[in-house]
Amino acid sequence: MIAGLDDLTTVLRAFARERDWERFHNPKNLAMALAGEAGELVAEFQWLTPEEAEGLDPGRRERIAAEMADVLQYLVRLADVLNVDLLHATELKIADNAKRFPVDGSAGDAPKAR
Amino acid sequence: MIAGLDDLTTVLRAFARERDWERFHNPKNLAMALAGEAGELVAEFQWLTPEEAEGLDPGRRERIAAEMADVLQYLVRLADVLNVDLLHATELKIADNAKRFPVDGSAGDAPKAR
Amino acid sequence: MIAGLDDLTTVLRAFARERDWERFHNPKNLAMALAGEAGELVAEFQWLTPEEAEGLDPGRRERIAAEMADVLQYLVRLADVLNVDLLHATELKIADNAKRFPVDGSAGDAPKAR
Amino acid sequence: MIAGLDDLTTVLRAFARERDWERFHNPKNLAMALAGEAGELVAEFQWLTPEEAEGLDPGRRERIAAEMADVLQYLVRLADVLNVDLLHATELKIADNAKRFPVDGSAGDAPKAR
Repeated sequence: MIAGLDDLTTVLRAFARERDWERFHNPKNLAMALAGEAGELVAEFQWLTPEEAEGLDPGRRERIAAEMADVLQYLVRLADVLNVDLLHATELKIADNAKRFPVDGSAGDAPKAR
Repeated sequence: MIAGLDDLTTVLRAFARERDWERFHNPKNLAMALAGEAGELVAEFQWLTPEEAEGLDPGRRERIAAEMADVLQYLVRLADVLNVDLLHATELKIADNAKRFPVDGSAGDAPKAR
Repeated sequence: MIAGLDDLTTVLRAFARERDWERFHNPKNLAMALAGEAGELVAEFQWLTPEEAEGLDPGRRERIAAEMADVLQYLVRLADVLNVDLLHATELKIADNAKRFPVDGSAGDAPKAR
Repeated sequence: MIAGLDDLTTVLRAFARERDWERFHNPKNLAMALAGEAGELVAEFQWLTPEEAEGLDPGRRERIAAEMADVLQYLVRLADVLNVDLLHATELKIADNAKRFPVDGSAGDAPKAR
């Protein structure tokens, strides 16, 4: 039973060490691996209509959950080797976003004016 | 203070609801948003040597932490709208990987024979 | 006036050489840069409905064309440093796909059973 | 023999039409497919050292060329459905970059101050 992000960090660090993978897991490589997994995740959705994507069949749903797990694993490994506190960084970002997108001003607009 | 993934899920759900963003946050769109943020993350590393990526200057390190936070936020939102338990999915994937890459057989090999 | 992919290859090679960027343009870094640009491209579409994406406003259409140009530039640079003939590789892939997805058998099915 | 991008556009348009794939090939989906292929491409390089990536073994080199072909195919399809002239857009972007990164000022600096 993995209890949370700290626990997951410890488990994945040991997993890498036991397999002598630490030399592969430098920040640059882990960022690439995360991007690769994000590509696999987005590919699962590419030919689905928005409606199909909201009512996934069980097989695809399971593959998608596994791709999401892969993204999380590389994100956690990257945070570990960079000594980044993921939850703290996310708190900061949410606080920034709360200023950029105040509740009154932004309701109804797209999340990001890209 | 965000205590963990469950807490983050709740915070982000409220953040989206208050801004009327739920109609944008369907699974297909969230997967795209995650891929976009993964692209921004990998771009931070693209011209760095592996050595530079291991000794980041503070400004870049902060930008990278913020990109990682963005990836985590979309991953957690996607898990929420798909009703996927991220930690459970990750446990399953780690168990799979432990079988695919036993400690004795894989030490020294690249993490994945892609 | 750039006449085609060969011409573009020559132009981009000179562009990099004149700026002393060749040491950044190794295959690994160029693949990352391409993934980063693909992320920016997909991000342009992330909050659009399929209908909105088919009737883009001029500003977004121009940004999208610029992102597509960035993808092409890194793809051409990567092909150059790897000495890959892009059109030849694409011919081979199309021939493969023609076998995998014969006209009679696949009509009506999603392009790829991922 | 595919002679260039225009020719490739025509070939891929027919390929999609013959298989009734046009309804999948909307701009949003094609951007996702391109991002997915860019993810597969970057994944080929993720565990390689920069040196290994410059001296690829033949099997990996072939897989990489095939992934690059996939990126090109979706890029060309996307340009087709959006009616974007890829080479023209690239010319514009190169002209912009020539202004942003003049030869004298930027030599020795990283290609992009991201």
